[in-house]
Amino acid sequence: DRPLTLIAGPCQLETEAHALMIAETLVKICETVGAQFVFKASYDKANRTSLKGKRGVGMEAGLKMLETVRAEFGCPVLTDVHDIAQARAAAEVVDVIQIPAFLCRQTDLLLAAGETGCVVNVKKGQFLAPWDMPNVAEKVASTGNDKILLTERGASFGYNTLVTDMRSLPIMMQTGYPVIMDATHSVQQPGGQGNSSGGQREFAPLMARTAVSIGLAGVFIETHQDPDHAPSDGPNMIRLDQMGTVMKTLMDFDRLAKADPFRL
Amino acid sequence: DRPLTLIAGPCQLETEAHALMIAETLVKICETVGAQFVFKASYDKANRTSLKGKRGVGMEAGLKMLETVRAEFGCPVLTDVHDIAQARAAAEVVDVIQIPAFLCRQTDLLLAAGETGCVVNVKKGQFLAPWDMPNVAEKVASTGNDKILLTERGASFGYNTLVTDMRSLPIMMQTGYPVIMDATHSVQQPGGQGNSSGGQREFAPLMARTAVSIGLAGVFIETHQDPDHAPSDGPNMIRLDQMGTVMKTLMDFDRLAKADPFRL
Amino acid sequence: DRPLTLIAGPCQLETEAHALMIAETLVKICETVGAQFVFKASYDKANRTSLKGKRGVGMEAGLKMLETVRAEFGCPVLTDVHDIAQARAAAEVVDVIQIPAFLCRQTDLLLAAGETGCVVNVKKGQFLAPWDMPNVAEKVASTGNDKILLTERGASFGYNTLVTDMRSLPIMMQTGYPVIMDATHSVQQPGGQGNSSGGQREFAPLMARTAVSIGLAGVFIETHQDPDHAPSDGPNMIRLDQMGTVMKTLMDFDRLAKADPFRL
Amino acid sequence: DRPLTLIAGPCQLETEAHALMIAETLVKICETVGAQFVFKASYDKANRTSLKGKRGVGMEAGLKMLETVRAEFGCPVLTDVHDIAQARAAAEVVDVIQIPAFLCRQTDLLLAAGETGCVVNVKKGQFLAPWDMPNVAEKVASTGNDKILLTERGASFGYNTLVTDMRSLPIMMQTGYPVIMDATHSVQQPGGQGNSSGGQREFAPLMARTAVSIGLAGVFIETHQDPDHAPSDGPNMIRLDQMGTVMKTLMDFDRLAKADPFRL
Repeated sequence: DRPLTLIAGPCQLETEAHALMIAETLVKICETVGAQFVFKASYDKANRTSLKGKRGVGMEAGLKMLETVRAEFGCPVLTDVHDIAQARAAAEVVDVIQIPAFLCRQTDLLLAAGETGCVVNVKKGQFLAPWDMPNVAEKVASTGNDKILLTERGASFGYNTLVTDMRSLPIMMQTGYPVIMDATHSVQQPGGQGNSSGGQREFAPLMARTAVSIGLAGVFIETHQDPDHAPSDGPNMIRLDQMGTVMKTLMDFDRLAKADPFRL
Repeated sequence: DRPLTLIAGPCQLETEAHALMIAETLVKICETVGAQFVFKASYDKANRTSLKGKRGVGMEAGLKMLETVRAEFGCPVLTDVHDIAQARAAAEVVDVIQIPAFLCRQTDLLLAAGETGCVVNVKKGQFLAPWDMPNVAEKVASTGNDKILLTERGASFGYNTLVTDMRSLPIMMQTGYPVIMDATHSVQQPGGQGNSSGGQREFAPLMARTAVSIGLAGVFIETHQDPDHAPSDGPNMIRLDQMGTVMKTLMDFDRLAKADPFRL
Repeated sequence: DRPLTLIAGPCQLETEAHALMIAETLVKICETVGAQFVFKASYDKANRTSLKGKRGVGMEAGLKMLETVRAEFGCPVLTDVHDIAQARAAAEVVDVIQIPAFLCRQTDLLLAAGETGCVVNVKKGQFLAPWDMPNVAEKVASTGNDKILLTERGASFGYNTLVTDMRSLPIMMQTGYPVIMDATHSVQQPGGQGNSSGGQREFAPLMARTAVSIGLAGVFIETHQDPDHAPSDGPNMIRLDQMGTVMKTLMDFDRLAKADPFRL
Repeated sequence: DRPLTLIAGPCQLETEAHALMIAETLVKICETVGAQFVFKASYDKANRTSLKGKRGVGMEAGLKMLETVRAEFGCPVLTDVHDIAQARAAAEVVDVIQIPAFLCRQTDLLLAAGETGCVVNVKKGQFLAPWDMPNVAEKVASTGNDKILLTERGASFGYNTLVTDMRSLPIMMQTGYPVIMDATHSVQQPGGQGNSSGGQREFAPLMARTAVSIGLAGVFIETHQDPDHAPSDGPNMIRLDQMGTVMKTLMDFDRLAKADPFRL
């Protein structure tokens, strides 16, 4: 019933100055519209379509940038991890550890993330039914950590295409854990450009708005001041200068939905 | 920009008294909440899963009932047709002729429907991409009749399951024709009960609400005072005594969405 | 256990001379390789993607051409019908009446086809699970006509794409009716070229061969001497001059499979 | 053009005696029918549906068992690894390192596997198009190791269901790397039993046979003397006492297919 949380930031960390600039813009937008804010960015893109895709600044440099953002703005920060060692290292800095969709069934990684005591945001695999997520959450919860978020990011629909089944949101809410809509990756076209993934940035606000109308804990949106030249996920990131308008609309829908949420 | 239209009624016509009772209830609800209303009912279910499924009262009796509803309440009425002769006969009575999803590519039926001069509501086939609907609409429009509605009712997603891709709504809106969300059949589970189709009635208000948040011309909802004993589509019809609450919520979202619609 | 039946011909009838040329070529190939043969062609393409797609020579002219082929070569002929009146008219000429996939749940059409006493070949809808075909067959069989064929032609797999689930073949065989693999339409890309359907002709022999390895009643293949200039389904028709090679391979696999069929 | 390779064994290692018993049976069958043989078993099931699913004997004990099988029968052995450290440890013992489908895009794991110099068998993700596998193979090949196998194991098809697109086999063959059909996991029903995955064991021989008819390097089949009591993947493992019959059929189809393979 609390106001919507925005989990947002650039797909991958570039420089400290860049991270600070994006974070500052988003902090101000969220203050203006009354949203909660979590800064998100990746230090390593571990599963690029092609070996030629840019990997990122690396864990050490990346965690340092996240620490700076956190110190500067006092906002929680989130990053995604790909193995047990990374989960432990990231936990020293971040508030939220994110499990990538491809890895959402890797038991050891889920346990390691849970054991850090951080909030754990698990993205639902493109290959998973929403009613299979309680088993996933239970792996994390078995560590005694029940600070769990579950994120929808689309399901495989034929080749190189994802579809978001709106039913998955209330189904996942039945676990009692907060549910997040990833409006960026749900409009990804995996592998759709041959050597990289395509995306349909123009639909990201649609995915966010329809999900928020249910009465949702949060939305996940990647953003960049110049998506067409971003090192990854450019095709589905929203332009930073449009985030204010997008968030204003989302908060309008959030208020209405929170007053009259859809629940199973 | 006009208020939401509700296209609603029982899946199939039963008796004149029953049709009048449902219509009266829905007319009152729509007046109360400020929605436009079109009464919908079928006189023949021409594609039941099994031969044992009830077909309906037949065209002659059914059209008479629709005529009575129209005369009694002054609301437009809609029914679905399955061949050219039916299209011509129905046009004598109804305001809107509906083309079933399975038949949405049958050129002669689309032309016959267009030639009646009635409004033609074409349901998008479960096998069709949204960007293929302009070709369908053009078949109707080639008759000089551009009073066309396009309806989303879900796409095949594996076996016995449909999924609604929210992107299809703004894509179909780009044709310029009003777009309708069928919240009843999009939660159908085709053939899912062996000798009949299953359904997830509990998700129909979800499908309606998320679609309306885009800023939509209308929603299509089948309803019955006792869905579990209805002759068809019981599993996905909303209880009549819940329609008031559902419509109140939809109109709240409609007002917000019409003030700030999502458009491509 | 009888040798494989080839149901083949051009997608649509063009001229009598053309039909005779194709039929003659296929009759000779089937004699050479020891296959049974049914000549197939359509007189009307009733559900083209676009209104601009060529419809065909019409029922009267088309049935006359089929009659000529039948008289000339003594082979059974097959055509597809789209309404009750066509089913009755076609039955005067053809041996096999085919129900198009989109229409496979239209009860009245199935009953009318059954009542003609002809063999009825029903294509499984792109939206139908294989275990839902017994209900379809039962509609035809309720007329007292159990000369029924069931044809696989792919299932919807995301947008503009079909996938063939090999499991559907033995599942449909459990009905006891002969099962046919449509190697042409299973590699169709519905609506995939904007105003017409695309196709992957290069995979048609693959679909045929893998299906035949199960031990199958027949394969359905559309063929043309110049597919790139054919009026419809060009992208997925096999070149006529390759049919001899294709059939030789299929008969080799058919012999092996018939000696050791896969059955549930 | 060499005879078919069978990659087979129990889903997970149980005891050394059990591994030896299964291996011995399979070695004899392959000698009898003229197939090549690779023994496969997992020491850890790292992504069970539920935390309650049995994980396995662990890496150390498991690798020792594999070493014993290798020494006893002189056959190559394969196991799957889940992180970089495991890849290096497994390489001390096994001939083939397998990358699980969920992990097929994890760049570091692919590189680590490649760097061991072992043969690397990558399973195509349930979320991946076949034309995206060259990018995956290239990651391995970038290490200078081109001993790569690519395995089909089904694609997501709605919820809790996989479908195998036969076209994926020749598409992956175009890379030049040997292609394997996993007849066991392609008939898995992921998460289909609530707390564990279901499966359709009865279709595994179908998947193997249809794939082999193309002319394939190998098939992957999990087997157990008592699948209903196996610790994992019981529903889709073939009974060990049926493997002889299955392999005899596959070799018949292999000989025919190798003499007349399907190639794009």
